Amino acid sequence: MTHPPDRAPDPIAEGLAPGLIAGDRRALARAITLIESTRAADRPAARALLSAAAATGRQALRIGLTGTPGAGKSTFIEAFGRLLTAQGSRVAVLAVDPSSVRSGGSILGDKTRMPLLARDPAAFIRPSPSGAHLGGVARRTREAVELCEGAGFDVVLIETVGVGQSETLVADLCDVFVLILAPAGGDELQGVKRGIMEVADLILVNKADGDTAAAAQRTLADYAGALRLMRPRAEDPEGFPLAIAVSALTGTGIAEVRATIARLAAWRRAEGHLVARRAGQRRRAFEAEVRARLMDLVAGDAAARTRMERLGQEVAQGLRTPDEAAAEMIARLGAGAGGGRAGGGGA
Amino acid sequence: MTHPPDRAPDPIAEGLAPGLIAGDRRALARAITLIESTRAADRPAARALLSAAAATGRQALRIGLTGTPGAGKSTFIEAFGRLLTAQGSRVAVLAVDPSSVRSGGSILGDKTRMPLLARDPAAFIRPSPSGAHLGGVARRTREAVELCEGAGFDVVLIETVGVGQSETLVADLCDVFVLILAPAGGDELQGVKRGIMEVADLILVNKADGDTAAAAQRTLADYAGALRLMRPRAEDPEGFPLAIAVSALTGTGIAEVRATIARLAAWRRAEGHLVARRAGQRRRAFEAEVRARLMDLVAGDAAARTRMERLGQEVAQGLRTPDEAAAEMIARLGAGAGGGRAGGGGA
Repeated sequence: MTHPPDRAPDPIAEGLAPGLIAGDRRALARAITLIESTRAADRPAARALLSAAAATGRQALRIGLTGTPGAGKSTFIEAFGRLLTAQGSRVAVLAVDPSSVRSGGSILGDKTRMPLLARDPAAFIRPSPSGAHLGGVARRTREAVELCEGAGFDVVLIETVGVGQSETLVADLCDVFVLILAPAGGDELQGVKRGIMEVADLILVNKADGDTAAAAQRTLADYAGALRLMRPRAEDPEGFPLAIAVSALTGTGIAEVRATIARLAAWRRAEGHLVARRAGQRRRAFEAEVRARLMDLVAGDAAARTRMERLGQEVAQGLRTPDEAAAEMIARLGAGAGGGRAGGGGA
Repeated sequence: MTHPPDRAPDPIAEGLAPGLIAGDRRALARAITLIESTRAADRPAARALLSAAAATGRQALRIGLTGTPGAGKSTFIEAFGRLLTAQGSRVAVLAVDPSSVRSGGSILGDKTRMPLLARDPAAFIRPSPSGAHLGGVARRTREAVELCEGAGFDVVLIETVGVGQSETLVADLCDVFVLILAPAGGDELQGVKRGIMEVADLILVNKADGDTAAAAQRTLADYAGALRLMRPRAEDPEGFPLAIAVSALTGTGIAEVRATIARLAAWRRAEGHLVARRAGQRRRAFEAEVRARLMDLVAGDAAARTRMERLGQEVAQGLRTPDEAAAEMIARLGAGAGGGRAGGGGA
């Protein structure tokens, strides 16, 4: 079977597109399954659906979220998501977990984590695609965000558990990035992952309630202090990044978080940073995709992969210089630059 | 003219190698000039010298250094370098400045910045290679470090002005990374570049003397607090990363910095982290070099470069998806994977 060229009518896409555009959550879920598929035969339908979504011109506010273990990330998303839907917004939650080995039970798992939001008709919750490498997760999540926008969702929350480079990935997919922390007592180490404070626009100290209220205020002061030590970014208005104490349990601070994110997004939009940020994200995604496909010239060929591994070990052991080894690797590649990567070359 | 194969006798290298290995600074300077050359004809000699350096089995302690503007980085390096030479060590200082457009006058400039160290017979100071892209600077600096080791230097200080991604580059070339700051008063922003605290093993607050002594102590406390908020790294002993107040002017704390770095390096060596760290650095350099050479399949061809630029713009504007554009880019590349990059393919 030969595949139709890009953007030609695709029967599967034709069937799903109207429901997707109308905001039907089942159509959206099926469309995301198509873009997550690694089968090359699914790619034309995936592309047609992405085109249909893009043609709507709809855009959502994309909010990235991460948190330390025990910070109450799910509880926060539930409280925050329900505030948004109560205000009339439709909210999609996408999870990014490159370590995920879950398959069938994952949706149930995510719905259990956020039981009220999962039952809310204005909300859509999607677990992480499983078993993919980070580059694959990046592409699929980016495309899933675009499908959610095409389906008319106003806010897309992209949540990550913070394994490996996943925060960097999510930071490069969102308009605003939020870090959620638990209160810490005294000299206790918070264990914030290195690099994460750098990309956070907003740091939330959760559990600012009951017994942990005082600890939350101390932790807030610590992080506010740490944020002041950093150089301000061009795309930040005065005072950002900032830290807020919240309680997902009592609702304290949740409305303030909503207002603060809206203020930051409005400022970035007005100053042109939001458009520039998304343009930069798309361009980097393209360049990463080209690099990945070029590397697949290596990874897609067993002999080349073996040679890459062997040369890498020799370099690590000091038997060869990186430069010499790379020259050998490239020289031996020979012709064959036309190879595609799994799921990528449907045209 | 055809070039001899790798590691075959090279007349230039044969002439320079004995002086290099004997620690002659002029021979070292000329060898570094060869590895910095972008002329393909210079590459065989450069490789032969790198082989000769590697054959000595000598290793130096590689210390990366960066600092905020006005922190007194040059004054610190001068004081620190002179302490090292007074203790009997030979010290090389390599600068990394990807923004450098200096050519002939740069050496004089660096010697003026560190006048006493520049006159010290146990010290060698080398300015940044000029006019190269970051990848080029990374390779040349890595190779210059190896030549300094071959020339018997005990400590190599790799200093960066912190432009662009240069700190990340230096962090991936050194055994220990040091950040130097000026004291700040009260709520004054320090302007530490994002990402830099993540890679620092040691934060030095300079100018802990005279009028700025009290401010230095306050700044020290701020940064010590910020460091406690971060997750400890596997390759750090208890208490690291840590902050120390110093005065390059009076010498306060300089010996403590020396002892602290020695303690950290000894621990990392004993635990196997130093060997693992260098092996990882070499492997990443190899992989980066392979990626760069693959990307040169694009960059080395005018038509492909134009197409890459055009597709990148279309993606940024939302006219195409990153995935589609990358597929087109790769499909049109065709055969031609055997091309080398400038200065890389001498064999």
